[in-house]
Amino acid sequence: MNYFVIMCGGVGSRFWPFSRNERPKQFLDFLGTGRSLLQMTIDRIRPLADPERIFLVTNEAYVDQIREHLPEIPADNILAEPARRNTAPCICWAANHIAALDPEATMVILPADHLIIREEEFRRTVSEGIDFVNADGGLLTIGIKPTGPNTGYGYIQFGDAVEGWPGVMRVTAFTEKPNLELAKSFVESGEFLWNAGMFIWRTADILDAFRTYAPETAALFGQGTGKYATADETDFVNEIYPQAESISVDYAIMEKADNVFVKSADIGWSDLGTWNALYETAPKDRDANVIIKSRVLTEGCRGSVFAVEGDRIVVASGLENYIVAQTDRALLICPLEKEQEIRSVVNSVASRFGDKYI
Amino acid sequence: MNYFVIMCGGVGSRFWPFSRNERPKQFLDFLGTGRSLLQMTIDRIRPLADPERIFLVTNEAYVDQIREHLPEIPADNILAEPARRNTAPCICWAANHIAALDPEATMVILPADHLIIREEEFRRTVSEGIDFVNADGGLLTIGIKPTGPNTGYGYIQFGDAVEGWPGVMRVTAFTEKPNLELAKSFVESGEFLWNAGMFIWRTADILDAFRTYAPETAALFGQGTGKYATADETDFVNEIYPQAESISVDYAIMEKADNVFVKSADIGWSDLGTWNALYETAPKDRDANVIIKSRVLTEGCRGSVFAVEGDRIVVASGLENYIVAQTDRALLICPLEKEQEIRSVVNSVASRFGDKYI
Repeated sequence: MNYFVIMCGGVGSRFWPFSRNERPKQFLDFLGTGRSLLQMTIDRIRPLADPERIFLVTNEAYVDQIREHLPEIPADNILAEPARRNTAPCICWAANHIAALDPEATMVILPADHLIIREEEFRRTVSEGIDFVNADGGLLTIGIKPTGPNTGYGYIQFGDAVEGWPGVMRVTAFTEKPNLELAKSFVESGEFLWNAGMFIWRTADILDAFRTYAPETAALFGQGTGKYATADETDFVNEIYPQAESISVDYAIMEKADNVFVKSADIGWSDLGTWNALYETAPKDRDANVIIKSRVLTEGCRGSVFAVEGDRIVVASGLENYIVAQTDRALLICPLEKEQEIRSVVNSVASRFGDKYI
Repeated sequence: MNYFVIMCGGVGSRFWPFSRNERPKQFLDFLGTGRSLLQMTIDRIRPLADPERIFLVTNEAYVDQIREHLPEIPADNILAEPARRNTAPCICWAANHIAALDPEATMVILPADHLIIREEEFRRTVSEGIDFVNADGGLLTIGIKPTGPNTGYGYIQFGDAVEGWPGVMRVTAFTEKPNLELAKSFVESGEFLWNAGMFIWRTADILDAFRTYAPETAALFGQGTGKYATADETDFVNEIYPQAESISVDYAIMEKADNVFVKSADIGWSDLGTWNALYETAPKDRDANVIIKSRVLTEGCRGSVFAVEGDRIVVASGLENYIVAQTDRALLICPLEKEQEIRSVVNSVASRFGDKYI
């Protein structure tokens, strides 16, 4: 059977003040659609999976919000991490949990806070990916056809196509976020895809890979054999999870394994990881401004994002390439090109005004 | 006896969104002192007058707010205009009302929404002005020594000094707001003062002047003789007030009369008529920003005004010479140099979002 694992423990602090520790990005109705990014993620896969086969791995601080956003998902399907340890421990736990339920399981790992415009194409990609790993095994990642030399994403270099599986190629290398020059050469070469953090594999194959390439993590979670999907699981995980190495699945497994494949996808994807990414994705007015859920009157503004919560109206003049974002706790006015600095601003805010604002 | 008349019927729409129709500037605690501009105006004159001799002329829409701000002023001392008709009808009514109470009265007319830093000096100026008009008659205006070539104020040209009354001169001309070149030559000449809209005269003298220079206004209000300061006054005024010509006392009387004097004053005055005026007046941080009642973290901001109501914190980057003003209804982000356009913006806001926002 096929299982979906949604990773939704992140904070998305670059979207401050919209996102903050107690209300991360995945819980926001970012695009004003009436559904949070998490809800949109679940809506998108529901044609492929019943709620019983959708699992959420999150920080325990967010369990209540998840149940509120997703009342249809069984409470037992929420795996609450007692500590933040990046994606490798998160996936290792989910694989062990699902293997205990179904040793023949195939897993699809998805982030909770990305945007996908072409949902039908996305589902077709996932279905074909499931067929591929069920037939041939291997660790499959979904790679996004680049629409430009974006320096905010990691890139996947691909090699030979796999015969009989359209769009599936062997992976040559994973790369870090490149500088602009490198990103341009990646895109021009036609040999690179964006790493979207979406994975498909048989549970048995990923557990094998952990044993080979991340043996300590495998051994740590292996101590729980017999406890997963039982009443003993929570206590066990709460005890061992903090000891797990904090490392991404890309570093721990994907960059090392020799059976890694990528399926190319053109699905209107954005990780919405930055205000710039949101700006690129969202519809624009005639002055190239993006207005999200806000009542805004602009005069001489260009290329700016306005995301102002609440009933308040906004009058803005002369802003070029700015972010104007406001919640009930904070107002941010910042050039889009300086958004990398938002993380450090958030730290200053915390030390000056207190944690409730971040 | 001396009577003080505070004109407080204006809207101050250039301070939108802080000021709006239902909450004009005079009712705002603009500088974060804990007292509204109106309260500060009354506080300033209280050493010179008991509450019984302080009158407020306002639009009837603001009567409740005035009573709330000034519980010590007798309710009968609030003269509620049924229509907006500029300062000449307002002053003519007040003069008739006070003449009915005390035919020997001397009146001091003051705006409700100006800032005066040197209050002792202000009170000394007013006291000496009262002495002057009580001794010699005439229409006295208080003129402010210019601190620079401000183009936002009207100017008063003075001529001969009046012997025996330090700082009192004959007025040669009233001028409109000048352009910058003209303003510079005014200031350099040393013959001009700023028109602060503050007047001192015997009630009998201003009523004489109305009869001579604004006979229609005088006649209209003259119909009420015998009704002022009685139970019949309100009905009478409500009936005739809308018929009054809408004109300032400067145009109607001061520019025409031949017994007009000015007393020069150096009292740390600003009409707070614009965000720029407020900026000039208020204390600044090390980056020359003015932070009013707001918790603001700035990075690379200079010469900007931040006035953000409520608990919300503000993080701003890269703003130079901007206004950032927010209330529970609206957020304004606008270059200080464009503040003249705020009035037209307010009109657009009204037509697009409704009157409750202006």
